[in-house]
Amino acid sequence: MRFLVAPSGFKESLDACAVADAIAAGIHRVVPGAIVDKAPLVDGGEGSAKALAEATGGTVVPTFVTGPIGEPVPSHFALLGGPGPRTAVVEMAAAAGLRLVPKDHRDPASTTTYGVGELIKAALDLGVDRILVGCGDSGTSDGGAGALQALGASVKDANGDEIGHGGAALVNARTLDLSGMDPRLDKVEITVACNPHNVLCGERGVARVFGPQKGATPRQVEQLSDALDNWADLLGDVRTIAGGGASGGLGAGLHAALGATLVPRFDVILEHSDLDARLPFADLVITAEGAIDGQTPHGKVPAEVARRAKKHGKPVIALAGTIGADARVNHDVGIDAYTSIIAAPVELDVAIARTAELLTDATERTLRLVLVGAALTR
Amino acid sequence: MRFLVAPSGFKESLDACAVADAIAAGIHRVVPGAIVDKAPLVDGGEGSAKALAEATGGTVVPTFVTGPIGEPVPSHFALLGGPGPRTAVVEMAAAAGLRLVPKDHRDPASTTTYGVGELIKAALDLGVDRILVGCGDSGTSDGGAGALQALGASVKDANGDEIGHGGAALVNARTLDLSGMDPRLDKVEITVACNPHNVLCGERGVARVFGPQKGATPRQVEQLSDALDNWADLLGDVRTIAGGGASGGLGAGLHAALGATLVPRFDVILEHSDLDARLPFADLVITAEGAIDGQTPHGKVPAEVARRAKKHGKPVIALAGTIGADARVNHDVGIDAYTSIIAAPVELDVAIARTAELLTDATERTLRLVLVGAALTR
Repeated sequence: MRFLVAPSGFKESLDACAVADAIAAGIHRVVPGAIVDKAPLVDGGEGSAKALAEATGGTVVPTFVTGPIGEPVPSHFALLGGPGPRTAVVEMAAAAGLRLVPKDHRDPASTTTYGVGELIKAALDLGVDRILVGCGDSGTSDGGAGALQALGASVKDANGDEIGHGGAALVNARTLDLSGMDPRLDKVEITVACNPHNVLCGERGVARVFGPQKGATPRQVEQLSDALDNWADLLGDVRTIAGGGASGGLGAGLHAALGATLVPRFDVILEHSDLDARLPFADLVITAEGAIDGQTPHGKVPAEVARRAKKHGKPVIALAGTIGADARVNHDVGIDAYTSIIAAPVELDVAIARTAELLTDATERTLRLVLVGAALTR
Repeated sequence: MRFLVAPSGFKESLDACAVADAIAAGIHRVVPGAIVDKAPLVDGGEGSAKALAEATGGTVVPTFVTGPIGEPVPSHFALLGGPGPRTAVVEMAAAAGLRLVPKDHRDPASTTTYGVGELIKAALDLGVDRILVGCGDSGTSDGGAGALQALGASVKDANGDEIGHGGAALVNARTLDLSGMDPRLDKVEITVACNPHNVLCGERGVARVFGPQKGATPRQVEQLSDALDNWADLLGDVRTIAGGGASGGLGAGLHAALGATLVPRFDVILEHSDLDARLPFADLVITAEGAIDGQTPHGKVPAEVARRAKKHGKPVIALAGTIGADARVNHDVGIDAYTSIIAAPVELDVAIARTAELLTDATERTLRLVLVGAALTR
């Protein structure tokens, strides 16, 4: 029996490779002769640069940048291997990710993407032809203003003073001057891998959808929303473009100021995987993510895997730490069945610390249920 | 497709009938034309008297008795319907159950089975031929001393004073005088439905195995163990008889002083169910209990159901709130697969409050996995 194991990483817990290994261990407990093809997937967020460097035989370049609260942080970007244009992967989470924001500073109105601009500069220093910016797991909501400032843009208030860091300060922005931008930017192709469901402004805008989970109060959410509205006025026609809201509006900022192309993340990331070529050989596809819920069909790994698997008529099972509200909609995108890895009432912290073990045990339980079904028809 | 749903109740949450209903609801979501045969099972513990009265067309007789901490509590026993000897079911949990012990009084060294003796007397008042005493969910560990005192026994210390309530007091017991026992006891057949794995004394004795979960500290456990050793000296040869440790030693007390027969609980309880007759018609058996763990094969509902199902070659799936340590041993007794009803990290209290909903959702998820397996073989 052949399994294709194509999971996402579990946020703040296990990267996609470790998730795939844990699932494979569970498969081998139940189906000893199983052939397991592991295809760990990244979504542009945390861990994506390293994973894509590994997948392509490229390298990871370490560097220091300005972190989301203005302090220096160790960071990195990837140089992909293989043929074709010399490509750098700048993972925004490596410079401005939520994990880099201390818990007592989780105010998305004050954090900056300045370090993302510094990473782009560092990639330019190496003379790349193409920069792929991975979005996801952002700890910022500054519309990319910080990243643009790091690259030479000037954003001034009514007094002609440069505005400070963070999304809240954007409410005072009156001018955006791109004349000082790094000239090398004109010669590289910049692609932003993002979730196309994320937009910058309005009811489904980034402040209202993601502000609360990044630590903003309802009042802060509205202030941030107003500030991003004002920023959008300076950027141009980006209020509701697909992916403009990615990573706190970084997508919109890079698109408007650098001419970056915003691309649905799996369209560009799966270029570097060979999932479509491997699917025809699988009898059963197992995918996984930290949560399966009503949002999963909107560009999350399990749904993207399921859509592709269904083109080949393959059954798909998804494992998750949390089965959330409206998870049932995932049956419509090709996830035939899903289950939680949780085996008893447990606190989130404890579950996160034990994710690998829980995944292996849950895979075993899941496959035993599948085998009950297989035996029924005999 | 025909399902036999034969679950236990979930302690402190849902009775077995409600569990069966919740599972049936989940089945119908996935297999609309399913035929679901519900066989909710009791184990002698909480809810057993009512369930057996219902199953046999009998009646529940309400009464008041002395509760486990000495205060009066509303209680009841059952008169079974149907042919044969006139049978009362005295559920010990209805007079001395853990649920009747306020949380700040959970000291098993001080609680009494006195009310169990009062229930037996009330059954004698109605002229029954047979009394079935159901064990389980006990809040006491007094070796049945309280029950015997209520029935006319006298237990005295070295000063010739009657000892007080609770297991700890048994360390002072020097004489057991049965001359004052209710004479009607000679004319009834008393059967105790108990878990035969529970013994009164020794390393696997009731104090050491159950004391901690009933609120005893390690020191109290050893004191209680010593007290029950002393009590065993007065009772006679009951230290390690099968079922003697049931309900804090109630089994040993009733056996030694009343000549009660200790019977493995499912052997007697399944007399009143027709599980064996219904199994041949099932394609799939679903059972459930609050926890599935290494103890399950030792006389818990899912294992008893699985053993009987396997005689008919039927596949068995078990659902549980908690998949505990060593749960895998249950595959050896015929549970082909098991899964948790928990769908996300959650506190125990929250899970308990939502058991019915969790069961229905988990049944749906489980059957979708079974259907993936069924489709694989086509």
